[in-house]
Amino acid sequence: MSSNRHSVVIVGFGGMGSYHAGLIKETSTLIVVGTYDVLEARRTNSNDAGYKAYQSYEEVLADSSVEIILIATPNDVHKEIAIRALQAGKHVICEKPVALSKVEFQEILAAADQAGRVFMVHQNRRWDEDFLTIKKMYDEETIGSLFQIESRVHGANGIPGDWRHVKAQGGGMLLDWGVHLLDQLLFMIDSKITSVSSSLSFILGNDVDDGFEAILQFENGIKAIVEVGTTNFITLPRWYVKGIEGTGIIEDWSLTGRLVTRNNAGEKIEPKPIRAGVGLTKTMAPPSEGATITEELPQPSELSSSFYDNFAAVIEGTAEPIVKNAEVMRVQNLIEVIFEAAESNQVVKNFDIYDK
Amino acid sequence: MSSNRHSVVIVGFGGMGSYHAGLIKETSTLIVVGTYDVLEARRTNSNDAGYKAYQSYEEVLADSSVEIILIATPNDVHKEIAIRALQAGKHVICEKPVALSKVEFQEILAAADQAGRVFMVHQNRRWDEDFLTIKKMYDEETIGSLFQIESRVHGANGIPGDWRHVKAQGGGMLLDWGVHLLDQLLFMIDSKITSVSSSLSFILGNDVDDGFEAILQFENGIKAIVEVGTTNFITLPRWYVKGIEGTGIIEDWSLTGRLVTRNNAGEKIEPKPIRAGVGLTKTMAPPSEGATITEELPQPSELSSSFYDNFAAVIEGTAEPIVKNAEVMRVQNLIEVIFEAAESNQVVKNFDIYDK
Repeated sequence: MSSNRHSVVIVGFGGMGSYHAGLIKETSTLIVVGTYDVLEARRTNSNDAGYKAYQSYEEVLADSSVEIILIATPNDVHKEIAIRALQAGKHVICEKPVALSKVEFQEILAAADQAGRVFMVHQNRRWDEDFLTIKKMYDEETIGSLFQIESRVHGANGIPGDWRHVKAQGGGMLLDWGVHLLDQLLFMIDSKITSVSSSLSFILGNDVDDGFEAILQFENGIKAIVEVGTTNFITLPRWYVKGIEGTGIIEDWSLTGRLVTRNNAGEKIEPKPIRAGVGLTKTMAPPSEGATITEELPQPSELSSSFYDNFAAVIEGTAEPIVKNAEVMRVQNLIEVIFEAAESNQVVKNFDIYDK
Repeated sequence: MSSNRHSVVIVGFGGMGSYHAGLIKETSTLIVVGTYDVLEARRTNSNDAGYKAYQSYEEVLADSSVEIILIATPNDVHKEIAIRALQAGKHVICEKPVALSKVEFQEILAAADQAGRVFMVHQNRRWDEDFLTIKKMYDEETIGSLFQIESRVHGANGIPGDWRHVKAQGGGMLLDWGVHLLDQLLFMIDSKITSVSSSLSFILGNDVDDGFEAILQFENGIKAIVEVGTTNFITLPRWYVKGIEGTGIIEDWSLTGRLVTRNNAGEKIEPKPIRAGVGLTKTMAPPSEGATITEELPQPSELSSSFYDNFAAVIEGTAEPIVKNAEVMRVQNLIEVIFEAAESNQVVKNFDIYDK
């Protein structure tokens, strides 16, 4: 173990736990020294990968050489594992969604506060390049001030056949993918949410949502549509955003996309009516030639450091967390409101935790 | 004038009036014998096109050789022109939206009833091939039972610079394009609407909406999203529909599109996780090879006759109207509810006029 790397034990060594191990290997600030999983097979995987497989969680907590617990378990046990880690004097990185309710998360934060330890949620999709490209457009008004932001993630595989389709374990798409898309929006848009409407989809017959759509209205005038689907055999674009001067699209994770803006230098030529279906339309005719400009997407924004390096700096006291717990609480609250809006089929207002 | 063609005078000889004239020329059931317009220039156009230009509406009504008045004026004067025509014993074809309110439309229907004349609204987009392709998929469950239908029309030209941007004349996109998209859905989906939410867009600074989004929930489980935009420099697909067995898309008026369905004959292979952004996902990975089938769109449904031929048959008493006034009233009511839902930012329930 390098003397200047902070030691991490990963609790829950499934898909995400292994993924973290690989990513942490690339950092110069953290090092994985072991794992703990309730399943024998995963303890074998851990040994095979060169990570000590602890035999019990007590053994991890009793090991004073371990500084950080990284929680990559199903969502329903985050709270207990986190609180025990904090009480044992460990710092904690926790997978999203942080908890099944605000109350659970408040208990975790109280434990972190009492122990004087760092607790940070792995809202890693703040670092996604597609999102950071939209963030650049938002911050720099590349296509003018944005007034509509549509963020969609579509798959056709249904919900994975593990705990993610079990309600008691915190399954369902709003908690799984929704937490990412909502976290991105709230990280980008510095404005209070004034209303939310939503609907959940239960096409696959699970007891958890297999998709959802939420419409968020912000005080600054922005309307955001957030949609996740797992029964979409054709995908709509990952991002579709409208600004005062044009429209931007990002098709998929490969960052295929473009901007089309009004050509203010061009001659104003009325578009010619077109036959559309059995009718005639000038309104929906393509703009005249030269009336618009097509451009490439801008370069994505950059965050000040990676998630892991930021975490290391936070426990060293040299940086503020990029993922702040107050922000995570705001998203947790929003998720609860989206469930409420869908279940009651009502527009919900006056709920946002926003204190700027 | 052919002895077996019914004589039509077009009132309002602008873009739509001229368009009707061209279409009626192709029928063997109707014939345009003249026009009336308040503008001198259009009377000249009419003469140039070989249609008698009546000098006043009174002159049209007094002409006993005229059987049918076709109204293609701004929306705010439909009612007066229609009622006077009916009282003069004429049958009436009226452009959409039929009126500015249910009350106006009720007055027209009372006049038609009293006069024993036919009044029919030109909901011509029931004949659009893109719509009839979706209708085929709906009726025949080509991709399984449909549960989500998204109908969008996007343009980037703003609202045309005529009466269509004036509120008092019945301007705005909900009345202009919304009436088509809503009429199509209600014509296709034989189920009561249980709730509506919506928002209107006022980006262009007009006193009418330059676009809107409405979400309709039907009693049979279908969710429909209807969206019109005039500030969309990149367009989303005209139709995006989800069925139990797959997804269908129609990109635009050219009927470019496809179906992608689950391959039930294929071997069940779990998709491999992909790296998406900075994260890992199996849920949103593309389905495994062979897990889906891509097909062409089906042939569109066919309606029993064209709008004009149907109108002629209705006045001859040999057919039922394809566009029924009760259906038009239901759409008119829905439009008023969509305005109400947007203005109050509430989900509106228990409003649908549906009596089957």
